[in-house]
Amino acid sequence: MTLMDTAQRDRWLLPEGVEEVLPQEARNLERLRRRLLDLFDVWGYQLVIPPFIDYVESLLTGTGRELDLQTFKLTDQLSGRMLGIRADMTPQVARLDAHHLKREEPTRLCYIGTVLHTVGDHLEKSRSPIQVGAELYGHRGAASDLEIIRLMLELLAQSGVLDVHLDLGNVAIYRELVRQAGLDGDQEAALFDVLQRKAQVELRELLDVYGVQGQLRDMFLQLPDLNGGAELLPRARAVLAGAGAVVADALAELETVWNQLRQRFPSLPIYVDLAELRGYHYQTGMVFAAFVPGCGKEVARGGRYDEIGKIFGRARPATGFSADLKVLARLGAPSAPESDRGAIFAPAGDDPGLWDAIRDLRAEGKTVIEALPGQVGDAAAMGCGLRLEKTAAGWVATPVAR
Amino acid sequence: MTLMDTAQRDRWLLPEGVEEVLPQEARNLERLRRRLLDLFDVWGYQLVIPPFIDYVESLLTGTGRELDLQTFKLTDQLSGRMLGIRADMTPQVARLDAHHLKREEPTRLCYIGTVLHTVGDHLEKSRSPIQVGAELYGHRGAASDLEIIRLMLELLAQSGVLDVHLDLGNVAIYRELVRQAGLDGDQEAALFDVLQRKAQVELRELLDVYGVQGQLRDMFLQLPDLNGGAELLPRARAVLAGAGAVVADALAELETVWNQLRQRFPSLPIYVDLAELRGYHYQTGMVFAAFVPGCGKEVARGGRYDEIGKIFGRARPATGFSADLKVLARLGAPSAPESDRGAIFAPAGDDPGLWDAIRDLRAEGKTVIEALPGQVGDAAAMGCGLRLEKTAAGWVATPVAR
Repeated sequence: MTLMDTAQRDRWLLPEGVEEVLPQEARNLERLRRRLLDLFDVWGYQLVIPPFIDYVESLLTGTGRELDLQTFKLTDQLSGRMLGIRADMTPQVARLDAHHLKREEPTRLCYIGTVLHTVGDHLEKSRSPIQVGAELYGHRGAASDLEIIRLMLELLAQSGVLDVHLDLGNVAIYRELVRQAGLDGDQEAALFDVLQRKAQVELRELLDVYGVQGQLRDMFLQLPDLNGGAELLPRARAVLAGAGAVVADALAELETVWNQLRQRFPSLPIYVDLAELRGYHYQTGMVFAAFVPGCGKEVARGGRYDEIGKIFGRARPATGFSADLKVLARLGAPSAPESDRGAIFAPAGDDPGLWDAIRDLRAEGKTVIEALPGQVGDAAAMGCGLRLEKTAAGWVATPVAR
Repeated sequence: MTLMDTAQRDRWLLPEGVEEVLPQEARNLERLRRRLLDLFDVWGYQLVIPPFIDYVESLLTGTGRELDLQTFKLTDQLSGRMLGIRADMTPQVARLDAHHLKREEPTRLCYIGTVLHTVGDHLEKSRSPIQVGAELYGHRGAASDLEIIRLMLELLAQSGVLDVHLDLGNVAIYRELVRQAGLDGDQEAALFDVLQRKAQVELRELLDVYGVQGQLRDMFLQLPDLNGGAELLPRARAVLAGAGAVVADALAELETVWNQLRQRFPSLPIYVDLAELRGYHYQTGMVFAAFVPGCGKEVARGGRYDEIGKIFGRARPATGFSADLKVLARLGAPSAPESDRGAIFAPAGDDPGLWDAIRDLRAEGKTVIEALPGQVGDAAAMGCGLRLEKTAAGWVATPVAR
């Protein structure tokens, strides 16, 4: 390989986890994009477009260290301040609700757009997902979580993602146990890490170090095992019986959502996992994630995050979910292979009758590709099954002989 | 104002030239976006999605200093290399054509997406336009420039942008004069700057310094005056008679495009400006821009850039245009004020008949907003003109009493 070749090849290379999308895939993404935005529309969710870059304080306040590490930073040469590229649109949409819309009524918003991550996670290598999501502000309680979960399931169905199962959790339980144990921020983070890995021995050691004793210690130790199907909630109520009203309420909420989902989606597999703390950094209550077989990472996830608006001056109850349009398009049942798109090849020419015919066909939604003088490639090479030809009856699209 | 207030206000602030888009405007943008992508589709232009970030060498090689200064840079922590945020999608699309598609036939591509600029220009303050454009690769000559100009005019019409006038130029003329004068890169840049400002005195001085004499000097001096309507081309031919075949061909191409546009758009005001070097940094031939009254900056612009693919290993003839979706939406005739969207407010409830009614209405494309238990705001406050009510005939949408 010559030096020139190497230099050229380097210019083709894309950064790891960053993709170009070619015509066929782009067409599928655009079609799915419209279907999902139309779905949000009929459910009353209004589209908003948060900015691509933002001051880091706005992007990250209250969202936790994980998002901070995932956020590309750069300097704004106009203000000298630090900017971040959005790595998650949820906090931006919450700000928009808190600051601009200022409604007391429930507000339903949706969004779609590229977000960037400094490092891809180990399962999904992409660093540039197209985040699509919906958020419901201004209502506290199981009914709004339920609406968001139903919308998430409907979005997966519309995307053709099959064999979905649902995981439910409630981070309010862990938050309350931590509060009762009087742990500080660092201790809480260490415990969180151990619970995520379900590392029982370390968990035991950590609780000893932090001096967590008695009933509270037993509850922490049993938390990693509190997961399962229909039988889980009675068991959890027994184990967490002494944990007080906040935990009892959180379990009751889980049960309400569970029962309602059972009614509406009788064949949907649902699991509850009380050590599931996905998105724990800003979530405050119910959390949920949808999985499909053969895909280690969730295809959509969400939860309640009642506190996030507070930093913008207005704490509103909030629940929402998001997914990656690229993943949905990849996992979704492939759309029927587009039969011949029926594009029409038109000759070059100065005949105003030809111009009219081309304009009319396009106005009907037909694709017409105009030949360029001396061009390489005939109708078939240009992907056209039809050719515009002059007949006694005027210009007519006729099939290309193969 | 308390310290807390100040901190909160700071978190609302957006970087200069960066916008949040609220529901009503987002709805208009989405509608226009679909209309324009559908327009590209019926003209045979296929959508591609270039990456949002890219290695700076890929983004900037061959594109000139102006784009470099407009590009946000950041470090990729995975590779340690310098990344840029796209400030112009045209070079990315050219790479895609050169590297991935590798067709000999003419290739028509289109794109839409946010680009970021480190500094806004003085007329358009935004630093985050939504760039929408179309590119035609693989054909050299007036016919492909003409198709792109026609598509640009059609895009403006579909956007409801009225009173358009068109500026035409051809940077091949300036490039050829510079070549004949034997100027180096710095001299060319200085002369370019003076010509853009039409600063006659400085132009005269510079030509003296560079030792440009005789006929060539006269031609450079007259270049800033070579602009006008129908009478311009004969005059330019006279002034540039001794400039050789390349300049004569460039003028002939301008005349062809002029005549064809006259035929197809008899009432379109067209001006020719031979010192118009807009986008000169990568353009090589015909350049064009569309203006509307009361807007100092062009609303769409484009031109030929035959060399750009070379750095990716494959120089293909290329011509294209782009515009900013946000500007088009703002300048376009406001769409008829949406009459009552006819959204339907549905009560909360466990009646499967209610669930079916809601599902059916949504499947018909109607927006149904479900009441949440204990929520603030009635049907009217939720923007609904109809309410779903149980009657003897089942669940029926009935007008909300005002």
